[in-house]
Amino acid sequence: MRLKKLRETLITEGLDAILITQPENRRYLSGFTGSTGVLLISADEAIIATDFRYYEQVEKQAPDFRLAKVTAKFVTVLPDLVHQVGAKRVGFESVHLTVEQHREWQEVAEDAVSTSKFELLPTKELVQKIRAVKDEGELGKIKKAIALADQAIAHIADFIEPGLTEKEVAWELEVFMRTHGAEKLAFDLIFGSGPNGAMPHATVSARVIQAGEPIVIDMGAMVDGYNSDLTRTICAGRPDDKFQEIHAIVLEAQLTAERNIRPGMQGKQADAIARKVIEEAGYGENYGHGLGHGVGLAVHEKPGVGRLSEDVLQPGMVFTVEPGIYLPGWGGVRIEDIVVMREDGVEVLTQASKALSG
Amino acid sequence: MRLKKLRETLITEGLDAILITQPENRRYLSGFTGSTGVLLISADEAIIATDFRYYEQVEKQAPDFRLAKVTAKFVTVLPDLVHQVGAKRVGFESVHLTVEQHREWQEVAEDAVSTSKFELLPTKELVQKIRAVKDEGELGKIKKAIALADQAIAHIADFIEPGLTEKEVAWELEVFMRTHGAEKLAFDLIFGSGPNGAMPHATVSARVIQAGEPIVIDMGAMVDGYNSDLTRTICAGRPDDKFQEIHAIVLEAQLTAERNIRPGMQGKQADAIARKVIEEAGYGENYGHGLGHGVGLAVHEKPGVGRLSEDVLQPGMVFTVEPGIYLPGWGGVRIEDIVVMREDGVEVLTQASKALSG
Repeated sequence: MRLKKLRETLITEGLDAILITQPENRRYLSGFTGSTGVLLISADEAIIATDFRYYEQVEKQAPDFRLAKVTAKFVTVLPDLVHQVGAKRVGFESVHLTVEQHREWQEVAEDAVSTSKFELLPTKELVQKIRAVKDEGELGKIKKAIALADQAIAHIADFIEPGLTEKEVAWELEVFMRTHGAEKLAFDLIFGSGPNGAMPHATVSARVIQAGEPIVIDMGAMVDGYNSDLTRTICAGRPDDKFQEIHAIVLEAQLTAERNIRPGMQGKQADAIARKVIEEAGYGENYGHGLGHGVGLAVHEKPGVGRLSEDVLQPGMVFTVEPGIYLPGWGGVRIEDIVVMREDGVEVLTQASKALSG
Repeated sequence: MRLKKLRETLITEGLDAILITQPENRRYLSGFTGSTGVLLISADEAIIATDFRYYEQVEKQAPDFRLAKVTAKFVTVLPDLVHQVGAKRVGFESVHLTVEQHREWQEVAEDAVSTSKFELLPTKELVQKIRAVKDEGELGKIKKAIALADQAIAHIADFIEPGLTEKEVAWELEVFMRTHGAEKLAFDLIFGSGPNGAMPHATVSARVIQAGEPIVIDMGAMVDGYNSDLTRTICAGRPDDKFQEIHAIVLEAQLTAERNIRPGMQGKQADAIARKVIEEAGYGENYGHGLGHGVGLAVHEKPGVGRLSEDVLQPGMVFTVEPGIYLPGWGGVRIEDIVVMREDGVEVLTQASKALSG
């Protein structure tokens, strides 16, 4: 089904074949999870080229693909593979291939003997666009990853107390997820207690947590290759008035977006719904990032749901809704759910409590 | 000192300035550890352009750089930044920049008003070449990361026993490293017990470990941003004759390389030393990867020490020496140390035992 969709795209784009290098795209189309390999997909053929380290793994994980063994650099087998599938117009992934790889590929494309000459043509996120709409199998895996993050934050809300360091809490959180089914963390934990929370991407520090301050925890689990992404801003002890005020604004922005996002909207229109609430509360300058992003095999993928995104939100898309307010010197509040787009609006998949403390 | 070396390179390459996008290069030159940012470095100026999420972090981590705030896409501020530093010939990193990013940059370079026009020129691994030779501070961090991996494998050699699964052992190993000073693992653990070990990059499975079989464990710790990389092939119980034979050949190949590598050799000459031993033992076909690779801020960096590498090994370079033999259906043996090149040969930094069992 995935290959079928891609092959339909090849026809639309006027391509005989496409070379896939982007790791999540490679996994999505072939099942292969290794670090290195190039797919060549035409109307009739599906080839995976990789090196010695992965010959056995490819046979297990990508049975629908024919293995092309690479003993030196991939570029040395490229012309022959393209010739084998009889392609002349060959797409490549312009948002992944580097300028240097492209130069090498272009060189062999031009040097190929006359009957084997081929043209390399840039394509932009063709597979990413297919990946943006999830099938039921994918949604099931994402839900597992979400449920695990939900359990983990509930555990941490109980665990956290003034006097613990960010590191101690972060490790407890990681151990919980890893021992309850996460194959890995979706990304390095973002953990901002007190003033650290003013950095939207704060890393875990040795800072000691104080009573009453906001603690931004942004984390996710990977289950079966699929990621979750969850942020809650919690409190050890009793939140002060300032914290309650900011938290209420961010929460209203989020809930307003979740109630009003509809299929057919562009990412930037969804973004504007939440942004308006924060701007009207007077904190527009303190909300510098986008509302959200797609989540799946990659933690950040299509659709974009930020100020500049023209991606159209369609049923089956899975993305985050995560407004925030950041005040240098004080800290930050961000609240993030994952939602799936349905015919009549978004279904919120994240179940974690939004209460300020455990 | 690092910027000074790069500025000397700019002169050699005939560049007025360079744009740095590769994450480890960015960290190496600026100290900034965030996920997004572009450096622009000229003879007199050092600018870091990043977005809202990282304004505070940049001020803390990269005090020698001037912060350029990016509120939309980086490319929108690029012409102005280049104009500010007065550059006409501007290098970019061709092994990192994607074809699409390059197209966007090229567009604004050509569209710039006459006095601001600039030329984008590909450069290849200029910073990577500087990074390949470590200073004392870096070597100290690498040694810490190595010592931690050494302790961890010793712990695991005691811990491992028949009946445990790969996952259980892998988790014990990870917890040990993370609770003894690793900020993260250097890379996803490679763990191949029995037949799984025939895949040089086996991932951790639920397989139950059997007595006597080879167990390839390839892992590393990150300490202060620097990585270690260690492989040992161990055994739960008594190794059989086959295992002992293969292990002895791989070990001889490794020790022969470690004794005979000299500064001034190319990576492929170093590779050939170990390969000859394995080929003469009749297992050349079962050793499909290179002898090693540089290690530092990245787990794989310059110098290359494989069959195709023409990198010249120089004093101060840090790299792995890791021959292996892989027999489908049976398993694999790989033994990996990290060494530092000295004036008279390599100093082996890895201290972990090479005994077959704990």
